[in-house]
Amino acid sequence: MLLGTWASPFVIRVKLALSFKGLSYENVEEEDLYYNKSELLLMSNPVHKKVPVLIHNGKSICESQLIVQYIDEAFSTEGTFLLPADPYERAMARFWAAYIDDKLFAAAFRAGKAKTEEEKAEALKQTFVAVETLEKAFKECSKGKPFFGGDSVGYLDIVLGALIPIVYVGKARYGIELFDDTRSPLLEAWVERFAALDAAKAILPEVDKLIENSKAKQARAAAVAAATSK
Amino acid sequence: MLLGTWASPFVIRVKLALSFKGLSYENVEEEDLYYNKSELLLMSNPVHKKVPVLIHNGKSICESQLIVQYIDEAFSTEGTFLLPADPYERAMARFWAAYIDDKLFAAAFRAGKAKTEEEKAEALKQTFVAVETLEKAFKECSKGKPFFGGDSVGYLDIVLGALIPIVYVGKARYGIELFDDTRSPLLEAWVERFAALDAAKAILPEVDKLIENSKAKQARAAAVAAATSK
Repeated sequence: MLLGTWASPFVIRVKLALSFKGLSYENVEEEDLYYNKSELLLMSNPVHKKVPVLIHNGKSICESQLIVQYIDEAFSTEGTFLLPADPYERAMARFWAAYIDDKLFAAAFRAGKAKTEEEKAEALKQTFVAVETLEKAFKECSKGKPFFGGDSVGYLDIVLGALIPIVYVGKARYGIELFDDTRSPLLEAWVERFAALDAAKAILPEVDKLIENSKAKQARAAAVAAATSK
Repeated sequence: MLLGTWASPFVIRVKLALSFKGLSYENVEEEDLYYNKSELLLMSNPVHKKVPVLIHNGKSICESQLIVQYIDEAFSTEGTFLLPADPYERAMARFWAAYIDDKLFAAAFRAGKAKTEEEKAEALKQTFVAVETLEKAFKECSKGKPFFGGDSVGYLDIVLGALIPIVYVGKARYGIELFDDTRSPLLEAWVERFAALDAAKAILPEVDKLIENSKAKQARAAAVAAATSK
C-alpha cells in the first residue's frame, strides 16, 4: 500500500519505481496534508509525518529515495534492477540522488516559495548551477547511452523523474525552462525520452491538472499569508 | 587512500568503518580546510570540496554515509557486514542514519555555532528531542542486544559512533550531557560499550586533544568574526 498525494514529486518518484519494476499496489491518497493528516499517516511515519509511505508486509518504509532502494532490494526476484550492481556505480548513483534532492530540488522549491524578487533570482541562479552540474553527471553516468542507468532506466532516472512535473509547470506557468538546449541539452532530451516511456506515461500526471493544482496551492498560500498578517 | 582531517566526525565515521571491517589504508590529512584546500581534495570532490573522500582503485567516493555503504559493498568478501541483510532492516538503518545527520548532528552543530543564548537554547532543545527519538530507535533496532546492529556493530553504530567525540567535548567543555541516564539511558550505555571496543579505541581521538582542538577552533572563529566586523 502506498500513502501519498497525487501531485507530490516524492510520491511520483515512488510510483515511478513501482511502475518500472512492474509492481501493483493499493494507492491511498491523503486528502489534506496541511490541516488534517490521517491517523494512518501519523502512525506510519511518526518521525516526519510526511508522504510517501510504503506499507509492505505490515511495515512502513518512509523517505522516497529509501523507499525506491527498498523496492529494488525487496523485489529483487523481478529481474530488473534500478541500482547498478557495481559498488562504485552504486555509490555514484546514491551521491547524485542526494545531490538532486539537496541541491536541485531544494533550490527549485526555494525559488517557488521566494517572497521577494531578489530571493527568487538567487534561488533560480542556484537551481541552474545545480542543473549544469547534473548535466555533467548525466554525461558521466550514462556514458553516451539514453538513460542515467545506461540502456534502461535506473535509480537516478527514477529519482530525477520526480522533477518532470516541476519542469512542465515551470515552463507553462512561469516561462522558466529548467532544462534547455544551451545549458543542459542532454537533460532536455532525457526528459522527452523518459516521459515517453509507457511506464512513465502511466504515472506522470496530466500537465493541465498540475497547472491547476499549482494555481490552487498558490491561492491557498496567499490566503494563509493574508489571514496570518491580520 | 582516505582524505580527511583527524578531528572531523565525518572522517572518524569512515575510519570506524574501515577499522571494524579490518581494512588498512593510507591516511592523508588535509592541513587546512578553511583557506587552503589541497589540489587532491578539489580534484577528488569537485562538487562539495569536503572531506572525507575515499580513493579506491583510482576512483573517488564522497559523503561519509555513502563511503561507509561503499566499503560494506566493495569489501563484501571480508565476511563482516555492517548493513543488515533484510531489505526492511536496511531501509530502517538508512532511515535512522539520515535522521542522525539531518536532525541530531544538524541541531548539535547549530548549538555549537549559535550566536545568541536564545539560539543556543533552541538548538539544544532540538538536539535533545532528536536524542529522545533516537533512544526509541535504538530500542527498536537493537531488540535488547548491545548494538544497533544486534550482537555486533552495524551500520548505525558506525554512523552514530562519529558523534562520540562531540559527546566527550560537550561534557568536558560545556557540561552538556548529550546522553544521560534519564533522557537516554540506552544510548548512554551504548557510548561506553562502543568506545570500549578495540576497533573503536584504535580510531577515536584522545579527549584532551579534542578539547584543545575545540578551543583552537573557537578562537579562530572569534578572530575571523573580529576581522570581518572591522
